[in-house]
Amino acid sequence: MNQGTIHGLGLGPGDPDLMTVRAERLLRSARHVAYFRKAGKPGQARRIVDGLLRSDVVEFPMEYPVTTEIPLSDPRYNAILSAFYEDCCDHLRALSAAGEDVVVLCEGDPFFYGSFMHLYTRLKDEIPVQVTPAITGMSAAWTATGAPITWGDDVLSVLMGTLPEDVLADHMARADAIVVMKIGRNIDKIRRALKTAGRYDAAWLVEYAAMRGQTVQPLSQAEDKVTPYFSIVVVHGQGRRP
Amino acid sequence: MNQGTIHGLGLGPGDPDLMTVRAERLLRSARHVAYFRKAGKPGQARRIVDGLLRSDVVEFPMEYPVTTEIPLSDPRYNAILSAFYEDCCDHLRALSAAGEDVVVLCEGDPFFYGSFMHLYTRLKDEIPVQVTPAITGMSAAWTATGAPITWGDDVLSVLMGTLPEDVLADHMARADAIVVMKIGRNIDKIRRALKTAGRYDAAWLVEYAAMRGQTVQPLSQAEDKVTPYFSIVVVHGQGRRP
Repeated sequence: MNQGTIHGLGLGPGDPDLMTVRAERLLRSARHVAYFRKAGKPGQARRIVDGLLRSDVVEFPMEYPVTTEIPLSDPRYNAILSAFYEDCCDHLRALSAAGEDVVVLCEGDPFFYGSFMHLYTRLKDEIPVQVTPAITGMSAAWTATGAPITWGDDVLSVLMGTLPEDVLADHMARADAIVVMKIGRNIDKIRRALKTAGRYDAAWLVEYAAMRGQTVQPLSQAEDKVTPYFSIVVVHGQGRRP
Repeated sequence: MNQGTIHGLGLGPGDPDLMTVRAERLLRSARHVAYFRKAGKPGQARRIVDGLLRSDVVEFPMEYPVTTEIPLSDPRYNAILSAFYEDCCDHLRALSAAGEDVVVLCEGDPFFYGSFMHLYTRLKDEIPVQVTPAITGMSAAWTATGAPITWGDDVLSVLMGTLPEDVLADHMARADAIVVMKIGRNIDKIRRALKTAGRYDAAWLVEYAAMRGQTVQPLSQAEDKVTPYFSIVVVHGQGRRP
């Protein structure tokens, strides 16, 4: 029997209309669908595909054993997550060995800070794995602001809000255009870094880009606001233009 | 009569299967389609949509009066291009005033170093303009390499090969993951900058990502090769992973 293929299927930023033609076709025909989610939650990736799956689809929710309960620096964090990813892979290996294709739902673009990457690196040398790229959350965010992100020779730096404040400020000062992801509880640190770099007044906060409840506002007007982890901060480049 | 809408329609990296569901729908129903191209060439954006347009579509090719014949630093360059964009906008304004919607074809993502941005900024406060994001060429490039571009807290820097060598080298040394676009005749400068930054041996060259003729190879094995302008150089981040 031929091995089944594991698809790392990028779904894009959230609006089903912004999925690729390929993603929609693979989804509608998929017998097996897997996705990550926080325990007790429906899962954002699963929500995007609501109404698109076969009625006899077999779902495999992969529930994170921890999210923020243990700090990243704790050695247990890596051990627990590594065991979790191995368990997920064992299930996918078994389905592939039985000749079944599996579509793994990926928010955004699978190879851009994606969870699927942890399965991909474990499986790619053993069984057939195919990755379909998709629109990133940051593309949806800068589109939502109604202004281009980069012109001419602009340098774009993509930064995670989890970085130390001085590292953030240093990159923010050197780049022309800036995207900051993983906001949430890092928002105050990000504000300070933008101020240090002299970029605060030009920063925009986009929440739920290309999803229901999308908001776009200057970051300076969103003081004291609780920002979701998947918010994105955008500073537009101002490069060359005729 | 209602004004027509000008659509900046992202087509993605080249494979029609990687267009969004929205882009395909808008394309198939479009009566007016506009696109940039070099004089005497079919145009890459137009090629992507071959076979998808209505039989009675009205096409408006917008032919660049110059590409590389005049250096960017020459003041005539800006004057000539600015007049060209104004002419294009006049045509789009007239169609919109007549109640016609127009789809402007955009390779990649319209707001990410896109030509449509020059029309967008001139039109957005006068007539209805809508932008549909799409997969960037760089997403297609890193997907083609078969390895994730960014992990954990990795910093991604997106650099244009047109930048000065020392600026390139400086950003390359500070970033974890690197994307270099606008390669072509800048390839030797990019090689030197990567060597200065100690990143040359980890660099990949992707030509024609998600298009016919796609190639992927270590940059160091592509010596003496003539590289097309739309090639992309990728250096993968090696960040945190359980």
